[in-house]
Amino acid sequence: MAKKSYKEMSKKELLHEKGSLEAAFDEWKNRGLTLNMARGKPSEEQLDLSMDLLNVGVEEIDVVRAEKNIDLRNYGGLEGIYSARELLATMLEVNADQVILYGNSSLNMMFDTIGRAMVKGLLGHTPWGKLDKVKFLCPVPGYDRHFSICNYYGIEMINVPMTEDGPDMDMVEKLVAEDDAIKGIWCVPKFSNPQGIVYSDETVKRFARLKPAAEDFRIFWDNAYCVHYLYDEIRIPNIIDECEKAGNPDMVFEFCSTSKISFAGAGISGMAASSANLKDALATMTVQTIGHDKVNQLRHSIFFEAGKKIPEHMKKHAAILRPRFEMVLKTLERDLGGRDAGEWLAPKGGYFITFTSVPGCAKRIVELCKTAGVVLTGAGAPFPYGKDPEDSTIRIAPTYPSRDELELAADIFTICVRLASVDKYLETAK
Amino acid sequence: MAKKSYKEMSKKELLHEKGSLEAAFDEWKNRGLTLNMARGKPSEEQLDLSMDLLNVGVEEIDVVRAEKNIDLRNYGGLEGIYSARELLATMLEVNADQVILYGNSSLNMMFDTIGRAMVKGLLGHTPWGKLDKVKFLCPVPGYDRHFSICNYYGIEMINVPMTEDGPDMDMVEKLVAEDDAIKGIWCVPKFSNPQGIVYSDETVKRFARLKPAAEDFRIFWDNAYCVHYLYDEIRIPNIIDECEKAGNPDMVFEFCSTSKISFAGAGISGMAASSANLKDALATMTVQTIGHDKVNQLRHSIFFEAGKKIPEHMKKHAAILRPRFEMVLKTLERDLGGRDAGEWLAPKGGYFITFTSVPGCAKRIVELCKTAGVVLTGAGAPFPYGKDPEDSTIRIAPTYPSRDELELAADIFTICVRLASVDKYLETAK
Repeated sequence: MAKKSYKEMSKKELLHEKGSLEAAFDEWKNRGLTLNMARGKPSEEQLDLSMDLLNVGVEEIDVVRAEKNIDLRNYGGLEGIYSARELLATMLEVNADQVILYGNSSLNMMFDTIGRAMVKGLLGHTPWGKLDKVKFLCPVPGYDRHFSICNYYGIEMINVPMTEDGPDMDMVEKLVAEDDAIKGIWCVPKFSNPQGIVYSDETVKRFARLKPAAEDFRIFWDNAYCVHYLYDEIRIPNIIDECEKAGNPDMVFEFCSTSKISFAGAGISGMAASSANLKDALATMTVQTIGHDKVNQLRHSIFFEAGKKIPEHMKKHAAILRPRFEMVLKTLERDLGGRDAGEWLAPKGGYFITFTSVPGCAKRIVELCKTAGVVLTGAGAPFPYGKDPEDSTIRIAPTYPSRDELELAADIFTICVRLASVDKYLETAK
Repeated sequence: MAKKSYKEMSKKELLHEKGSLEAAFDEWKNRGLTLNMARGKPSEEQLDLSMDLLNVGVEEIDVVRAEKNIDLRNYGGLEGIYSARELLATMLEVNADQVILYGNSSLNMMFDTIGRAMVKGLLGHTPWGKLDKVKFLCPVPGYDRHFSICNYYGIEMINVPMTEDGPDMDMVEKLVAEDDAIKGIWCVPKFSNPQGIVYSDETVKRFARLKPAAEDFRIFWDNAYCVHYLYDEIRIPNIIDECEKAGNPDMVFEFCSTSKISFAGAGISGMAASSANLKDALATMTVQTIGHDKVNQLRHSIFFEAGKKIPEHMKKHAAILRPRFEMVLKTLERDLGGRDAGEWLAPKGGYFITFTSVPGCAKRIVELCKTAGVVLTGAGAPFPYGKDPEDSTIRIAPTYPSRDELELAADIFTICVRLASVDKYLETAK
């Protein structure tokens, strides 16, 4: 049965629809559920995939000690052990010597990289903290924690709209060429957070060819989901190589981690960049730390065979996540398709589905969901300063709940979307 | 046979002594040894004490999951897991809720704490980065990496002499009361780096009662060697309690780690402070990181039974280290006692012995040692800006080499000290 669009309904029809939706909503509310689609966390099933990593222990440490005469339990080796650098290099399709390792959090490395730029400056340039104004471009919707870092350091954020090929590159090119206060841009190039968009080859190449007014402009290329496919592998050009080819070797910092590959709290992370940039980073790290946990690096390089086992391992993650994504998408289509009650993309990887509601409804939908027992990421979170200009973007995180819970949560979500949409249309209906 | 002091020797006697020393020196040099007394690193034997920690794995994670319904493999728990906070709290003699955890490096936590003070300010005070001048008091000799952090952030360092009871408190009290640009002081209160001095009870209490001109003045109490006894346990008053009692609850950050208890590269670290300070720190950490490695925290809390096994474990370390310290001290006494060729203290814990040469000899001794195959910490390193005003302080690190190597290194060291001293006395001898 084809559904009638709310846009085309009369006031009377909308009021009738509202009545049934309110009844359904009350029924859900009275069940007193507590469900959560807010968090981009791996599920227990996914974490279980890497349990053997915990068993890398005494014997392996002894083997490394014997073979390479390196004691991973002691100080030293600031850049990380080679086989673990290989692991991340394989994921990013670069060479191991283009990668240095950090602790368990790539976010921490991004935060510290901006801290370093503020205090020391990059490659000899004026520290950003000494400038009157520092600005970052923020493709929106984007990752809230990137924006929190800018906020922390007092960096002004400028929205750049996302297209289905990535950020609006006409706008990016124009802005960075004009304004030397623009020092960076946040990018999640594969399966963007939250839309799951994969940057097109042309977008990646245009990034590499940017001609920023600021010599110390940097692309913060957060390749958080580089191997996080739901279906087949998807490749994009390697930004490190592209920047080098375009004569901009120092323009990019690329980050990644195993947070959503091994353990979200106990993985390893790192950065790929030009040798000049890596040297610059190590000069700060040598003051900051005694070096990161090499034993955990060893666990990871052994478990993933320095990267060789990543494709096989990620297929297991996909097998767990794919049905969750498909179930949510099916529910959206079933309940909202043809109603003019919002839009969404079907991501091919990553951790989120973005739902775009009728303008002015996102906050209301999040509130309604909360009342009915489903926690969603706060409306506005995927925007700088928490301000969604259209009040229409909602990030759905389908990875963490059990499938049963997710099914309930999706059912509740669409009821709330419909209710908010009907109310919105009623404001102007005749 | 009593040795004759170089001070009392005639020129002729000194020249004769010089001749024999040069012969001995050349003999060592020709052996082409490569020995190292520079690094405050645990030895392999010490690291071997904690190997069972690596075997904490699948089973234990499952137990925690089942018992406490917390998945340590996932995101969350920014302040660290409770049992690991208990572990560090036991070491510092505070309560677990007075402690938050960091990654594997307490140095990193100190670096980041100063970074936070620079960018955000402490407890609502003006960020240090916005002030014309920020100064730190630096008891000397001290830990070079503390000074490197100040240097990194452009903080001016003021030397404060150490006494056998800790820093010169008359000077500390006067300076902090007079100058509100003085925002901090570095302290290693137990077995100070490098002298091994334990602050007296009165010193600790005078610290707690400081009346600094700057409201956001902080004592950086780096209790790196809090349980690192060579002989019996030695207690000092708890600085957190003392500051609270003195009405200065927010004036101190206390740091510690298991770097020299479990593994130097793969331990856990943390900070004890007032609840206001911890809340302030967490507000930054929540922007900076997804949280530190809780699986490694679990390994530590299980292996050390949340702290209960620390005393027993540290006795094993002491059994390894004590003979090394004693051997070096015996060699110093044997070769240098009564010669007026330098002084030293016999530490009761920690990682170093400080040798104080005849003024103007430290650099020369380090160079001579290098020529003869023994690497020492650079002369000047234990001072801000690398400048030892007397050129007389040499840090000896006896923990890392094997005992055989250490014996050779100590023998070479005293020859070099004697040679440099004789040359120095010859400058004025008649």
